[in-house]
Amino acid sequence: MANSKYEYVRHFETDDSLLPNTWIIIRIDGKGFHKFSQSHKFNKPNDRRAIDLMNHCAKAVMKELHDIMLAYGQSDEFSFVFPKWSNLYSRRASKLVSTVVSIFTANYVLAWPQFFENVCLAYAPSFDSRAVCYPSDQNLRDYLAWRQADCHINNLYNTTFWSLVLNGGKSEQEAEKALCGSFSKDKHEILFSDFQINYNNVEAIYRKGSTVIRLPQEVTYVSAKTKELGTRIKKIPTAVFEDIISPEFWDKYQLLLPDTKGK
Amino acid sequence: MANSKYEYVRHFETDDSLLPNTWIIIRIDGKGFHKFSQSHKFNKPNDRRAIDLMNHCAKAVMKELHDIMLAYGQSDEFSFVFPKWSNLYSRRASKLVSTVVSIFTANYVLAWPQFFENVCLAYAPSFDSRAVCYPSDQNLRDYLAWRQADCHINNLYNTTFWSLVLNGGKSEQEAEKALCGSFSKDKHEILFSDFQINYNNVEAIYRKGSTVIRLPQEVTYVSAKTKELGTRIKKIPTAVFEDIISPEFWDKYQLLLPDTKGK
Amino acid sequence: MANSKYEYVRHFETDDSLLPNTWIIIRIDGKGFHKFSQSHKFNKPNDRRAIDLMNHCAKAVMKELHDIMLAYGQSDEFSFVFPKWSNLYSRRASKLVSTVVSIFTANYVLAWPQFFENVCLAYAPSFDSRAVCYPSDQNLRDYLAWRQADCHINNLYNTTFWSLVLNGGKSEQEAEKALCGSFSKDKHEILFSDFQINYNNVEAIYRKGSTVIRLPQEVTYVSAKTKELGTRIKKIPTAVFEDIISPEFWDKYQLLLPDTKGK
Amino acid sequence: MANSKYEYVRHFETDDSLLPNTWIIIRIDGKGFHKFSQSHKFNKPNDRRAIDLMNHCAKAVMKELHDIMLAYGQSDEFSFVFPKWSNLYSRRASKLVSTVVSIFTANYVLAWPQFFENVCLAYAPSFDSRAVCYPSDQNLRDYLAWRQADCHINNLYNTTFWSLVLNGGKSEQEAEKALCGSFSKDKHEILFSDFQINYNNVEAIYRKGSTVIRLPQEVTYVSAKTKELGTRIKKIPTAVFEDIISPEFWDKYQLLLPDTKGK
Repeated sequence: MANSKYEYVRHFETDDSLLPNTWIIIRIDGKGFHKFSQSHKFNKPNDRRAIDLMNHCAKAVMKELHDIMLAYGQSDEFSFVFPKWSNLYSRRASKLVSTVVSIFTANYVLAWPQFFENVCLAYAPSFDSRAVCYPSDQNLRDYLAWRQADCHINNLYNTTFWSLVLNGGKSEQEAEKALCGSFSKDKHEILFSDFQINYNNVEAIYRKGSTVIRLPQEVTYVSAKTKELGTRIKKIPTAVFEDIISPEFWDKYQLLLPDTKGK
Repeated sequence: MANSKYEYVRHFETDDSLLPNTWIIIRIDGKGFHKFSQSHKFNKPNDRRAIDLMNHCAKAVMKELHDIMLAYGQSDEFSFVFPKWSNLYSRRASKLVSTVVSIFTANYVLAWPQFFENVCLAYAPSFDSRAVCYPSDQNLRDYLAWRQADCHINNLYNTTFWSLVLNGGKSEQEAEKALCGSFSKDKHEILFSDFQINYNNVEAIYRKGSTVIRLPQEVTYVSAKTKELGTRIKKIPTAVFEDIISPEFWDKYQLLLPDTKGK
Repeated sequence: MANSKYEYVRHFETDDSLLPNTWIIIRIDGKGFHKFSQSHKFNKPNDRRAIDLMNHCAKAVMKELHDIMLAYGQSDEFSFVFPKWSNLYSRRASKLVSTVVSIFTANYVLAWPQFFENVCLAYAPSFDSRAVCYPSDQNLRDYLAWRQADCHINNLYNTTFWSLVLNGGKSEQEAEKALCGSFSKDKHEILFSDFQINYNNVEAIYRKGSTVIRLPQEVTYVSAKTKELGTRIKKIPTAVFEDIISPEFWDKYQLLLPDTKGK
Repeated sequence: MANSKYEYVRHFETDDSLLPNTWIIIRIDGKGFHKFSQSHKFNKPNDRRAIDLMNHCAKAVMKELHDIMLAYGQSDEFSFVFPKWSNLYSRRASKLVSTVVSIFTANYVLAWPQFFENVCLAYAPSFDSRAVCYPSDQNLRDYLAWRQADCHINNLYNTTFWSLVLNGGKSEQEAEKALCGSFSKDKHEILFSDFQINYNNVEAIYRKGSTVIRLPQEVTYVSAKTKELGTRIKKIPTAVFEDIISPEFWDKYQLLLPDTKGK
């Protein structure tokens, strides 16, 4: 039962390595999360537990894959940014795509009870994942802007929609009809006039999504030699809720894109 | 904050759909499972709980993705076979690769306590995943034969190795040395002479790996009309532990490869 | 001026090798041949010199690339069939695509004066080229059927159109209008009633296109030893003008697809 | 004989479009040009007619494909640079690869008699072709530097080798042996001491290869209105023989890479 006569089948694998010197984005998306959020009674328009869990998983991915420079998440999706110089898994698309989604998924299920106390996971949630390359820093920033603008548009809609339903006594159909064809300013107006909500005061985590970057943080450690406690600075994946479209963000965290100056 | 000016970034996604009319294999592999099995004190040479958990996850994948015809697993890997005619996710490689690995991983973590009672999951296990196309039925069978021959070679080695260590009083280094350069028949001989083990009597699940196919099974149901209990035949993903290299398997389950006759 | 510091740029080349064990078709298409045929006053509806030149070039490609099993041409296109087992240029798509089109183009220009006596080549004609893989024999036959059905449809139209224009005294616009929405049988009828042409008697080279296969032929040679003339059988790329859709062709030339029986 | 039942075969074509916003290089290489140059008695170490013909063909390609910004040629190869923003043929690799090589080949055969008077083309020469993407301007310049460094290394070797053979009375084997393991400065020394050749005075076209760029040139035209002769400035593909490794070239022709300043 020698293996050699079958080994020819290995040559059917194709090389799917991604172009060098480009930014690699791995984006994961929840599979059937509309149904999943209903089954597990997520709060509307946003469930803070669900967002915190997503962010926890993104950090776990970044702790395992050190090349990742930044991750941006909103709703049931998260995008992971590998720098141009990364050679992780020889830049093979399927390795990157599958490893990121698998680490994320495992942590989602494992950490669920921490974030959703007293809510049993009714079934196994899953995500899909894809890889896209961006050659220039501008392309990368436009990609992230695309996702954050999407977050804004959806969150403004959802905030208004659920205000109408939960506090305005409308049915879901009525709310949908009321918002059909409405502009951004109309939604701001409804929120303000009917529900005394200034949208700009809604918590940033909902309006801006979560950006996980490695920020220096003081950590405590036990010296191997002296057995004494000490502190040192370590870079820890940390979620911030900022505007990543405007140049200020990139000026502030200049190490992310050293060549750009947020222009 | 209109989204449209950033939408051009979508066109950087490349089409990774797989050639039509070919068998698609998605194979997942445990990431760092040597360490994972040690951390969780897996029994040696095989841990039945771990194998049963793997098979449980494979069945879960097949219950969610109905196109999958067969799955073959051994050690920390599982291969899923999509038929030539499958058009799931328009045959996009990254979608297939990521969805299979994510469903598998989620179920692994979720079902862990069922299979490993009293063993806490110390950290999140993960898998990678890849896609390979095979044009002919013979290629497909040779692929599966390759994995089963690999299972055989490794299991014979591991069974002998751990007999030497656990029952023969050898250190791991000594056992490794004793087996270095040994042939198949030498290992059979050591097992038989030194440990009274006839390798061919080792349970098939260890020697042959697990093949999950959809077998007809009588299932009980409650009639929607009469509220009475009834039974009907349903095809349920079921693990068998057979030789899939020899033609008998393919003759027996002819529906799998209708054009072949196990030749 | 050492080369080594720049050599990293080689790693940006991606592996474009085609899936093993599939039929490879390389199809070339004339670039701007509508204008080219007008500039060089090709006869209408078909110019025998142009077809003969195309066939000459296809044979030249097959004489240089021995793996090619069959070529099928019509109008300004030619498809070259590489067998499943071919490993020419390690099956790299760009190598196959470029080599075939370059040999074809070179021969087209070089042999032009032989076929178009007294017609000067006004400018350099060119072709594009693409590669497609087909996993099964049936896919291959359907591909060829697709091209031959295309030949039939276009030739019936063109034959009728140019009869109306050249012999029926219609302008091109009038002829186009007359044929707009017409069925196959209508065109047969026009040809027969108005121009006494039984379309089925039109020469097969126009109705069926050209299929170039390697047919055994007696060739004369000079013996190296005895310096005497001898004859032997050699397989020579030869154009036939047959129906390649129906099974008879594949029965007749069974060596082309040994596993099929033209079914 | 409807075509529709076979049209499914179109879906086997895969999308091979190249990543947007990257430089595309199409490089063609002579196929078997060692033999071709011998068959046609090319002068050694360089045949000016052959180089002029190559440059003529490169210009012809650039006249037909207006997106091409620059072409660099040496020996039997030519690289064509498409700018990042080019969307020619939707950036499909096989279209670009095949069209460039076909136009080049056609012009090579067509213009041969102009450049090689009294030398008959014994057979059809051909080229292969490939596509590579480069994300950054620095990558592009390093690619071109790689080819020009290659030109330098080969030309220095060939110049010395053929001096030894043609003027030094050595056989080809002896010359090869004499140069085996020699450094650049050794070859300079041999040329200078034995043959009174200062390599740096060898014509730049041989030492530097040919770079074809679109340079403004005064062209004469006949006014459509007045029928009078006029002159205007037009950008014409023109060969220069400069050092493209050093920044001076990119400073001089800044329009080529507006963002770089030859740094």
